[in-house]
Amino acid sequence: MLKYQHIANEIEKYIEDHALKQGDKLPVLEKLMTQFGVSKSTVTKSLDLLEKKGVVFQVRGSGIFVRKHKRKGYINLLASQGFKNSLEEFQLTSEVLQLKVTKPTQEAAVNLNVELNQDVYYVKRIRYIHGQPLSLEESYFNKAIITYLNKEIVAESIFNYITEGLGLKIGFSDTFLHIGKLNEEEAKYLELEKDEPKLEMESVFHLNNGQPFDFSKVTYNYQQSQFFVQASSYSL
Amino acid sequence: MLKYQHIANEIEKYIEDHALKQGDKLPVLEKLMTQFGVSKSTVTKSLDLLEKKGVVFQVRGSGIFVRKHKRKGYINLLASQGFKNSLEEFQLTSEVLQLKVTKPTQEAAVNLNVELNQDVYYVKRIRYIHGQPLSLEESYFNKAIITYLNKEIVAESIFNYITEGLGLKIGFSDTFLHIGKLNEEEAKYLELEKDEPKLEMESVFHLNNGQPFDFSKVTYNYQQSQFFVQASSYSL
Repeated sequence: MLKYQHIANEIEKYIEDHALKQGDKLPVLEKLMTQFGVSKSTVTKSLDLLEKKGVVFQVRGSGIFVRKHKRKGYINLLASQGFKNSLEEFQLTSEVLQLKVTKPTQEAAVNLNVELNQDVYYVKRIRYIHGQPLSLEESYFNKAIITYLNKEIVAESIFNYITEGLGLKIGFSDTFLHIGKLNEEEAKYLELEKDEPKLEMESVFHLNNGQPFDFSKVTYNYQQSQFFVQASSYSL
Repeated sequence: MLKYQHIANEIEKYIEDHALKQGDKLPVLEKLMTQFGVSKSTVTKSLDLLEKKGVVFQVRGSGIFVRKHKRKGYINLLASQGFKNSLEEFQLTSEVLQLKVTKPTQEAAVNLNVELNQDVYYVKRIRYIHGQPLSLEESYFNKAIITYLNKEIVAESIFNYITEGLGLKIGFSDTFLHIGKLNEEEAKYLELEKDEPKLEMESVFHLNNGQPFDFSKVTYNYQQSQFFVQASSYSL
């Protein structure tokens, strides 16, 4: 972790520790420099990162303010570790239904940019929140990149393993959302009725060199899940 | 518009004009400087903006590459002008059902940070895509900030009017998504059956000084709408 990332974490911790709310002002730049013993350019980079992450907003000539929505229990659509980050106060568990090396479906091959005869890891899991089914997940990993997986890894956080175990750097993701009706299999796993509403989320995750490595389809239990997404001025 | 924003638009246009695809490499920095006749710092700022917007990704020591998903007809969850930007190839129209000055609901007052006896504009619209109902929208605008609206404005883009007509700067938004079942009124407007799936999207838009000015609830026709969201390394 680079120094400005570390300081960004420290500032986030400061916001938590002081229970700062949306619109509350952060100490001025000079004070943050002294407090964390770093240069102006490091503090500036840390604040830019926190602005991108939606933690603060900067008002020119006026200061840096906390940005924080008031709702709890929403899954952050911009985080691959959405569950871990957004639902950490809840009790989450996973059940691995299937883990195998196989050939990709046509759809997975297109999204992973691999040939149909290349090997992929296929993982099928159910996530539970407080013992209730939250989501049904099917993931395809390009085995040329994600060279090894086992039951223990996929029962925990695959992304932690990818970054820490394999030392890969995650770059960006594209996520596509559709609303529809549950089919029989999905309804069974999610303990709902066929034709009840569902959110289906397809994501393609890329390394920081642009290579796609994970194509996932997640079907959410509409009674257990809600989502949020923060936008900044550059996208609005 | 600042110079680097203008150059960012030019680079986006270059990507379009040359039909560049995901993973295609952009010209090197020096070439972009010459091509657009600007300094290195301007090109760098333009590229940073395009990276934030999800248009390019930068690989250290290797170059700048185009980032572009292959799917069409998806509404960008990170854009307030989602329709205009994501669905511009489609024929979109609006029908204004109601426009009035009124007092906010409890929920609107909390989200707009106003008192219950303050004035707000209330706007109710249906959006159509190719003549099919796409969404039912209810919006509350803080009248102390959005001082004037009329039928003509709300039939077009309210956000264009806010930025260009009123000269206000939009800062950031928080959006909350729920999946549920249509009630009778929603089903009628969206020409679906009661209890069919819906996506309900609540957004709070803030000025660049942090003040919330717009609280909107949008109910989508699940048969006409699909969504995408791009994430970058800082959020993953």
